[in-house]
Amino acid sequence: MADPLTFLDVRAAAARIAPFAVRTPVLTCADLDRRIGGQVFLKCENLQRVGAFKYRGACNALLQLDAAALARGVATHSSGNHAAALARAARERGAAAHVVMPNDVSRSKRAAVAGYGARIVDCVPTMAARSAALAEVVAATGAVVVHPYEDHRVMAGQGTAALELLDQAPELDLLLAPVGGGGLMSGCAVAAHHLRPGLRAYGVEPSGADDALRSLRAGAVTPVAEPRTIADGLRATVGANTLPILRRHLADIVTVDDEAIVRAMRYLWERTKLIVEPSAAVPVAALLEGLVPCTGRRIGVIISGGNVDLDALPWSAEVRR
Amino acid sequence: MADPLTFLDVRAAAARIAPFAVRTPVLTCADLDRRIGGQVFLKCENLQRVGAFKYRGACNALLQLDAAALARGVATHSSGNHAAALARAARERGAAAHVVMPNDVSRSKRAAVAGYGARIVDCVPTMAARSAALAEVVAATGAVVVHPYEDHRVMAGQGTAALELLDQAPELDLLLAPVGGGGLMSGCAVAAHHLRPGLRAYGVEPSGADDALRSLRAGAVTPVAEPRTIADGLRATVGANTLPILRRHLADIVTVDDEAIVRAMRYLWERTKLIVEPSAAVPVAALLEGLVPCTGRRIGVIISGGNVDLDALPWSAEVRR
Repeated sequence: MADPLTFLDVRAAAARIAPFAVRTPVLTCADLDRRIGGQVFLKCENLQRVGAFKYRGACNALLQLDAAALARGVATHSSGNHAAALARAARERGAAAHVVMPNDVSRSKRAAVAGYGARIVDCVPTMAARSAALAEVVAATGAVVVHPYEDHRVMAGQGTAALELLDQAPELDLLLAPVGGGGLMSGCAVAAHHLRPGLRAYGVEPSGADDALRSLRAGAVTPVAEPRTIADGLRATVGANTLPILRRHLADIVTVDDEAIVRAMRYLWERTKLIVEPSAAVPVAALLEGLVPCTGRRIGVIISGGNVDLDALPWSAEVRR
Repeated sequence: MADPLTFLDVRAAAARIAPFAVRTPVLTCADLDRRIGGQVFLKCENLQRVGAFKYRGACNALLQLDAAALARGVATHSSGNHAAALARAARERGAAAHVVMPNDVSRSKRAAVAGYGARIVDCVPTMAARSAALAEVVAATGAVVVHPYEDHRVMAGQGTAALELLDQAPELDLLLAPVGGGGLMSGCAVAAHHLRPGLRAYGVEPSGADDALRSLRAGAVTPVAEPRTIADGLRATVGANTLPILRRHLADIVTVDDEAIVRAMRYLWERTKLIVEPSAAVPVAALLEGLVPCTGRRIGVIISGGNVDLDALPWSAEVRR
């Protein structure tokens, strides 16, 4: 088993990525506070480079590659924000990025990755095809694989979001973040508990992709066969490296259904003027649904990203049809 | 003529509203910088209370009313953000707010004003009817009228946006803001020139509501008979109190058409993950259209607000039909 992720890893990541990443603002919303009876601090990672916290982890990984590795380039398979983050971080270091993408990815996400100069390798949308295509890329190029969450450099980078949040909004009682593969939650929980041991960390998942909850209960990685949720960033399965960290640090995992997610997303758009993607609305949905005890508490929430297709919003007539 | 608006007014306003207003973040966008060849600093007043800079001026005005005036309440006529701002600032001071609204205002704007506890007085959508209805309200209640821009307390409050911006992003060469009635531009230009005399301030208007440009050229308030623009916050006419300040402080006024405004709005949604209303996209449209010389410059832009109807976005199929 790998060495445990430590606060020192997160602190070193923060120093490393500081010249590149945005120190994102923390916003409050009086109406939200009134509704839930607590004080909420929104850490706006939708305002991060590439529109998602993923840039932190990708940047931290890229900055630890030596010249020989950079010359070979980096590779991953991803249908979403990690692909864009890796592409951008690689471009900034002058490295090539090879991204294996399923051929059902939306045009806008593909355009974002291509816009950052990555080479896109198409494959059919199955995990087996993705892994095979990635293996081929690595065999052909010698590129270094940067996994979206099963990598301590990536987890440490994501944890810098919580490190900043606890500086910007001290004395938090609770921390909520969405859980997909668990990289964000792992890094953030390690950072938050070091700084504030009494803090309670809650992971939030879509009920149609509740693999982390099942895995936590079972004590072993337990995938959901066919994850179904509008929160496309949270369909991944927790990994062998993230699960032990979640088990150690989480007070609980709660789940919300897609209707609650879309309601929370729309609420955030209207009230905070932030463009948040469905995955980012998931923890706020848990608060609005009353699933986490928060009366009188100070609650930090990681708003994970803001990449949505503006032509297919979940409340538009075309999507409803 | 009224005393000139001074930097001291703005500084006093900043101290007065500090416990209530948000110190809004300043964001940057690498893609925007690359496109225009300068460094842009976006002062995000869409993230201000009520989703617009208008809260600053309304709050500053309310905080200068004595107990007797507060007991009588405040009144205005407005179809937009000033109404919501005044309603909220009044509620926070325990004062009644009476808002005369034309009966063609969208349901969402009406709901926002009502949500802050204001009494809405309906009238037909003409300036004459609005003035008459406001006069009736004042006669019946003794309420204090707070004009959306022809009031030094309001202008000074709006100027605090620039005061903060120059602290958050020092050494600006240019400052751009949208011009409707001119209250925001007046307050911001006075603040900015005191702190940085060499700064060039540009006002930006929709070409279908270019009354400020005409007024500046003519040397007197020159309304546009029927303003036509998607930027609903900028249809007002510059006033006798704001025009002299604009004449003294502006390097120029430039205009952009509605197509450029919608393009800039969409660009900002996609790239910055901020919900900006059409009026707020107007200065960015001027930059993207190359209307302001900005190569190598540091450019401050006031992003004025983020109140839009999410069910009728300008790029949605229903609106295009």
